[in-house]
Amino acid sequence: MTKNVLFIMCDQLRADYLGCGGHPTIRTPNIDALAARGVQFSQSYVQSPICGPSRMSTYTGRYVRSHGSDYNQVPLRVGEWTLGDHLNKFGARAVLCGKTHMRADVDGMARLGIDPDSPKGRHIAECGFDVWDRLDGLHPTGGRAPSHYNDYLRRHGFDGENPWEEWAASVVDIDGKVKNGWLNENAHLPARIPEEHSETAYSTTRAIEFMQQADGDPWCLHLSYIKPHWPMAAPAPYHDMYGPDDIVAPVRAGHEKTDAHPVYRHNQDVRHSQIYNRDGAREKVIASYMGLITQIDDHIGRLITFMEDTGRMMDTMIVFTSDHGDYLGDHWMGEKLYFHDQSVRVPMIIYDPSPQADATRGTTDPRLSEAIDLAPTIVDFMGGDVQSHILEGRSLLPLIRGEETDWRTCAFSQADFSHISTRAALGHPAEDCGMVMAFDGRWKYVYAKGLPAMLFDLETDPQEFNDLGGDPAFADECGRMQAHVLDWALGGKTRVTQTQAEIENAKPASASGILIGFWDEAEHRAAQARNNS
Amino acid sequence: MTKNVLFIMCDQLRADYLGCGGHPTIRTPNIDALAARGVQFSQSYVQSPICGPSRMSTYTGRYVRSHGSDYNQVPLRVGEWTLGDHLNKFGARAVLCGKTHMRADVDGMARLGIDPDSPKGRHIAECGFDVWDRLDGLHPTGGRAPSHYNDYLRRHGFDGENPWEEWAASVVDIDGKVKNGWLNENAHLPARIPEEHSETAYSTTRAIEFMQQADGDPWCLHLSYIKPHWPMAAPAPYHDMYGPDDIVAPVRAGHEKTDAHPVYRHNQDVRHSQIYNRDGAREKVIASYMGLITQIDDHIGRLITFMEDTGRMMDTMIVFTSDHGDYLGDHWMGEKLYFHDQSVRVPMIIYDPSPQADATRGTTDPRLSEAIDLAPTIVDFMGGDVQSHILEGRSLLPLIRGEETDWRTCAFSQADFSHISTRAALGHPAEDCGMVMAFDGRWKYVYAKGLPAMLFDLETDPQEFNDLGGDPAFADECGRMQAHVLDWALGGKTRVTQTQAEIENAKPASASGILIGFWDEAEHRAAQARNNS
Repeated sequence: MTKNVLFIMCDQLRADYLGCGGHPTIRTPNIDALAARGVQFSQSYVQSPICGPSRMSTYTGRYVRSHGSDYNQVPLRVGEWTLGDHLNKFGARAVLCGKTHMRADVDGMARLGIDPDSPKGRHIAECGFDVWDRLDGLHPTGGRAPSHYNDYLRRHGFDGENPWEEWAASVVDIDGKVKNGWLNENAHLPARIPEEHSETAYSTTRAIEFMQQADGDPWCLHLSYIKPHWPMAAPAPYHDMYGPDDIVAPVRAGHEKTDAHPVYRHNQDVRHSQIYNRDGAREKVIASYMGLITQIDDHIGRLITFMEDTGRMMDTMIVFTSDHGDYLGDHWMGEKLYFHDQSVRVPMIIYDPSPQADATRGTTDPRLSEAIDLAPTIVDFMGGDVQSHILEGRSLLPLIRGEETDWRTCAFSQADFSHISTRAALGHPAEDCGMVMAFDGRWKYVYAKGLPAMLFDLETDPQEFNDLGGDPAFADECGRMQAHVLDWALGGKTRVTQTQAEIENAKPASASGILIGFWDEAEHRAAQARNNS
Repeated sequence: MTKNVLFIMCDQLRADYLGCGGHPTIRTPNIDALAARGVQFSQSYVQSPICGPSRMSTYTGRYVRSHGSDYNQVPLRVGEWTLGDHLNKFGARAVLCGKTHMRADVDGMARLGIDPDSPKGRHIAECGFDVWDRLDGLHPTGGRAPSHYNDYLRRHGFDGENPWEEWAASVVDIDGKVKNGWLNENAHLPARIPEEHSETAYSTTRAIEFMQQADGDPWCLHLSYIKPHWPMAAPAPYHDMYGPDDIVAPVRAGHEKTDAHPVYRHNQDVRHSQIYNRDGAREKVIASYMGLITQIDDHIGRLITFMEDTGRMMDTMIVFTSDHGDYLGDHWMGEKLYFHDQSVRVPMIIYDPSPQADATRGTTDPRLSEAIDLAPTIVDFMGGDVQSHILEGRSLLPLIRGEETDWRTCAFSQADFSHISTRAALGHPAEDCGMVMAFDGRWKYVYAKGLPAMLFDLETDPQEFNDLGGDPAFADECGRMQAHVLDWALGGKTRVTQTQAEIENAKPASASGILIGFWDEAEHRAAQARNNS
């Protein structure tokens, strides 16, 4: 039987903004129902809490330190294997419907003589995906800008230089006046675009259209919503579906304003954080954020119904996840980038149609999963060999199917503040701004060169208010966690041109006549006899 | 004025087997004279003490953990920048005359649609060099095997299926009988090939021929001798130039046989180490090794004379180094691969013709240099911009020219025993066999995952007999050195697609209309004014 994968990713969706993720007021019945049919990994961490590097890790199955694209707009260097490359190896393909945030390594292609308009060039430039529909929200950069959604909008009468920005990302006030959807004072207003033509509706329909026309060849369809990422322009009726009573209180302690790590402290002062100190900002922004999530949930419902009706629920694995969260004012910060759970932990729901997965349906698995596990999970599910000399994640299939297996003891994530104002504010060299988080299920440790380390105990301090990194009483914990970071740092899989099996089965040099340290013919003959035996 | 570089590399030449390197009996007057005209870096370390990875580090200017080719025959992945790429960027070129040990990433090229027989394909497959003459000694692998030397031998009447092996790597006994040059019992016999047609003579002549025909375009000629690497077949008169009295005593302590680190201990038991426990083995092998070095020295003299006569000493930097050393029985080991100075420290002599370098001529600089410094040094000397977001080494030019500069505090090197019998003997997983050396000029620390760390104090124990890694009295030193390893491990330059300047000069997102965290138009207008100012 052909096995397919529907790999759904939201953008900027926190793990705790789903019903099944524990939110007290949000309504996500269809996603909750999917979780009830699959496994929910409750401690799932992205490898960098920001779109570009997180996605590059997810699509390559490798940590940021290995693929090198450590911030938005840093091109993924040519030569990195992507999910599509791994699938192509056994005749399957990765198909894109939505966002990747991929920026092509145009210089690298030129240096290797690869024509960016050739099939190989397009494959590389699109991060290994066959593009069914690319929609990055922000203009995709890097030379070729697919504009499927803008074309669609124009066909439906929504004109303009950039119809996405002018209709879907703009809002309308009660007098019918068009307002700038980027501005958060307008977050409570409905998007100018009717819901049925909004990004989430559009991408869902396009995904269904892909499945309708797909022939029997196996596919992994990456349905990659650009929401609930800002601009906070929710179409009616989602824009005012949630009110102030639905908004949970911010997670923040007063002492965080004074005691925080220098990097976090600086981030509290920038515009995207300061906005949440304004009266009424959280209410406006979060209500819109929640509306966008419920809109996605409704379309997940539509998608599942289609898949039920067409038999796809029998042969298709469904993954539901996000590329990172959003502080939403927690810890006095906005946006993402850093390592509190609000930012770095994401939903991870996997529905495996196989009978072997029946025993775990509806369960929550607290074992540490990482976004880089998805590529090997998808390869494994579809029947390919997991190239473990390249892929740094691990297939989740044994966990989903209730098999005994040793599992990782730490999850890792990275952030790099060289690309933002924090670098200059702290006077840090651009090459020393990388930070690494190691989380072992209880202790969350963050290493930053030339700056204090952080340590949080999520057992006694689940809200991550108290940084124990400088407390001598926890020096042993810091040492133990730092040792995890060291082993992780040294364990990067850069030997990507030779498999473990090739290494383990290599013949000795003497088998090809290269004689090292032989004294005489007798020794040589003895070795030849061994090689031939 | 056009500036050129003659980049000479020997193979398996220990730092202390030169007159200027402190050897009491070896005769290397021409190399000593070169040192007297340049700077000798007395603490120069290769990034892996074995041919393939050491050379890939030297040619890429990057640590092994960054380029990934961690053992012989592990292909250098397509997409890694090489010295040739850096030089090509400003119209210069890297030209090969001799050995590289490069193995092409044929699979990687195929995946990217690069024809290995196209100019780009050949450039990649030859590690960025224009091949004037390739001579790897052992058959080069990877599809295309240049056989210039074999063609030459055949033209001069030295026939056979593999004339190199049958003439240059074979020896002749006193009865004129041809013997196997790979076998060390024959190391005292002369090579079958007459000296003037031997590898060292041939490569030198070919280098001179290159310079004779070179037009005015700048070049970096890599004259890469395959000697004094085994097979130990020195042509007459070099085969018996040194006698037992010229051989220095082995550097080894009895307790090393019992106390050594498990990895070293296993390596003491393999054939290439055990051979030195045989009576008379060192005398035979080392006499031949020294003869091969003096032969190289004689040809260096010929080369320098040519360069004097043709004006090349006025415009050409000369580098003289090696890819690693040879234990030669020291520490009860043979070959190389590990981190005693006999194996990991190499000669590093640089002659800079510029007047700015006059002040340092004839000096010895003890500051820590690394083989990866050569690529940036060459780029810097030839007038290119050092791409410091890719190159992990540093230009030595400021040191050679006596300029004030901060310098590194540690040198690093790596070894990986997954490819040899030690992996199975220790029952180690193939992906955990990497070891890292950090040396700060006094303390040499070696980290190996899942195995004890090693620590040697070269101030009180210059012969590296006493491993202090397990001594609680040195826990602080171990901790300090481990912190160096951690920062180094996390500092790998994988962000190769964006320069530091691009990062530091990037405009804020709001400059392109992406508004993050803005509340209202007033804030937006204020930011626009700042972006335009």
